[in-house]
Amino acid sequence: MQVSIMFKFAVIGYGFIGRRHVNTLKSFDGVDCVAVCDIDPVRREEAKKAHSDIETYASADELFAKADIDSVIISANNNQHHDLVIKAARAGKHIICEKPVALSVRELDEMIEEVRQAGVTFTVHQQRRFDKDFQTAKACYDQHLVGDVYTIQSKLFGYNGNMHDWHVYKAEGGGMLYDWGVHLIDQALYLDKSRLVSVYADVRNVINKEVDDYFKILLSFEDGVTFEIELGTYFLSDRKNWFERHWFVGGNKGSMHADKFNPEGSIVRTAHLLENVAGEQDKSTASYGPTRSFGIPAPGLIKTEPLPEVHTEQRDYFVNYFKARRGEADFVVTIPQVRRVLAVMEAIRKSAATKRSIDFE
Amino acid sequence: MQVSIMFKFAVIGYGFIGRRHVNTLKSFDGVDCVAVCDIDPVRREEAKKAHSDIETYASADELFAKADIDSVIISANNNQHHDLVIKAARAGKHIICEKPVALSVRELDEMIEEVRQAGVTFTVHQQRRFDKDFQTAKACYDQHLVGDVYTIQSKLFGYNGNMHDWHVYKAEGGGMLYDWGVHLIDQALYLDKSRLVSVYADVRNVINKEVDDYFKILLSFEDGVTFEIELGTYFLSDRKNWFERHWFVGGNKGSMHADKFNPEGSIVRTAHLLENVAGEQDKSTASYGPTRSFGIPAPGLIKTEPLPEVHTEQRDYFVNYFKARRGEADFVVTIPQVRRVLAVMEAIRKSAATKRSIDFE
Repeated sequence: MQVSIMFKFAVIGYGFIGRRHVNTLKSFDGVDCVAVCDIDPVRREEAKKAHSDIETYASADELFAKADIDSVIISANNNQHHDLVIKAARAGKHIICEKPVALSVRELDEMIEEVRQAGVTFTVHQQRRFDKDFQTAKACYDQHLVGDVYTIQSKLFGYNGNMHDWHVYKAEGGGMLYDWGVHLIDQALYLDKSRLVSVYADVRNVINKEVDDYFKILLSFEDGVTFEIELGTYFLSDRKNWFERHWFVGGNKGSMHADKFNPEGSIVRTAHLLENVAGEQDKSTASYGPTRSFGIPAPGLIKTEPLPEVHTEQRDYFVNYFKARRGEADFVVTIPQVRRVLAVMEAIRKSAATKRSIDFE
Repeated sequence: MQVSIMFKFAVIGYGFIGRRHVNTLKSFDGVDCVAVCDIDPVRREEAKKAHSDIETYASADELFAKADIDSVIISANNNQHHDLVIKAARAGKHIICEKPVALSVRELDEMIEEVRQAGVTFTVHQQRRFDKDFQTAKACYDQHLVGDVYTIQSKLFGYNGNMHDWHVYKAEGGGMLYDWGVHLIDQALYLDKSRLVSVYADVRNVINKEVDDYFKILLSFEDGVTFEIELGTYFLSDRKNWFERHWFVGGNKGSMHADKFNPEGSIVRTAHLLENVAGEQDKSTASYGPTRSFGIPAPGLIKTEPLPEVHTEQRDYFVNYFKARRGEADFVVTIPQVRRVLAVMEAIRKSAATKRSIDFE
């Protein structure tokens, strides 16, 4: 059966993620990617080799002037998103922009105004809302599986030290905060929808000369959750599964821990709480000096339950996208949401520079 | 050989730690513990049963009026330290006080003035400066084993939920910040002697009604270290050695991790850093979506070295103490140091209450 093409895309920026976008678009019925734009002739050749039917363009101006497209994915370097989104809007194209949508709230506000005038749709590829590790933590929070939550910890550690490709350059919008930080913050704000009261952050260039490669961020939410994000590109251990995702959700009815992108872990509770009070003191001591609160728990005290099962994949971002384009759903990633993420990132940089917390909302 | 007794002690408060103090004092040549003071008759009986030669007193006033002592260890409940230290000073006794030395800086300042007028020695039992896990992390920092340090993380997790004994009561000076927090903060300030720029803290009553049982504290030091302390009495996992001490020291030449009071872990480095730059992109992807920075490292990339060896035990606190009393050393724990710890604790409570960082020094 021949399916008519409803959406004709171009991808601008045939780099690491751009290649993936072309394949993803072509895998959907009723969607085609008809053109690729990249300033690098080698990459344009690679695109033609991978997709014999694809047109290639060396400039966005030429693409928008000539190509038979209604939609575009912008996956050029981070510092180019602002100008390319505005060009696309002026050309009347519907826009998916890679993350981070812009380098600042100010940039984004200019983009929003152009998009508004053009009347096109505009969303951002925050596909990690569909990651299994995140959705597992989210299910734990949404379903109150550990009671009232006081801490959610989202971590990711690497061994490379240096950033990759153009991400080593500040001028291109490099650094880990723009690369992975934007995902981790987006996940936090997508999970906890309450008011974000304050932001405290430590951001470092540990190995990289120009750009950040370590951050710890504490987001204090009005519903009582402190959401912690920590990432380092040179944060080493010889533990198994160290260089993957880590989650911890602590509540007053238990804790959840999960490691790996395809998460492994459990929900943990205790059979009972301590009930000794003054006058009935516990006389236990340990080899490392007296402590009544820490050490090896009695057999049977620690109870474990499996993690909640979640069914999710990054492709779901595009499933939602095309439903929304057909008017059958709302876009799962909205511009006010990504604007809030950028505002948090600005608060993070300010907090790190001043070593002070930033009142947020 | 008969050794003459140079130091005659009483212990006030024959609870969990007081019992230990009597035994410790009696184990030193030239030292005796001749008296115990406790308001509880059952405990006074227990003291006599354990030590047939010991005198017992029901009140500190009676002890100071009658007992043949020159020194005292005060190990009553936290809220009694202030009054007992002042009584001891007025009685002309040399003083070791349990931690926390006082509930506030204001209390301590009153105690300091009385001690000054009395001309006695005054120090605090911060014996966890001699813990092996801490000394291992300290050696790592002091000897620059991981290069320039950006993060030191000191953690301790429990399964009891409720605090023990009188520590459940706010009026007695209960809660984990006064119990273990004072040790963990003291360790941080003893390790990193640079100016403490700011304090940010999250402090909770997760399980306990009156007192805190979870805290995360970020201490931002002038030398570039962010020292993180995290403790929870209901912070659960089914991982091995979870309910013990955990350390992580991250530097630009490697990382150190150690678990357990008797620490197990390693120093970890990489054989090389990533060196790809723009135009030479790495095309790797993983099942969980593209990421070039995280996942399983190549064989041989991760290098491990053993932890530094340290020789230390809590008894060393008293070894130093008696040397100092004999004029052969300085007291390892000084009153200006413990006063600074109390000031940090006040900043911590203020930060937690306001959800804002506190400028410290």
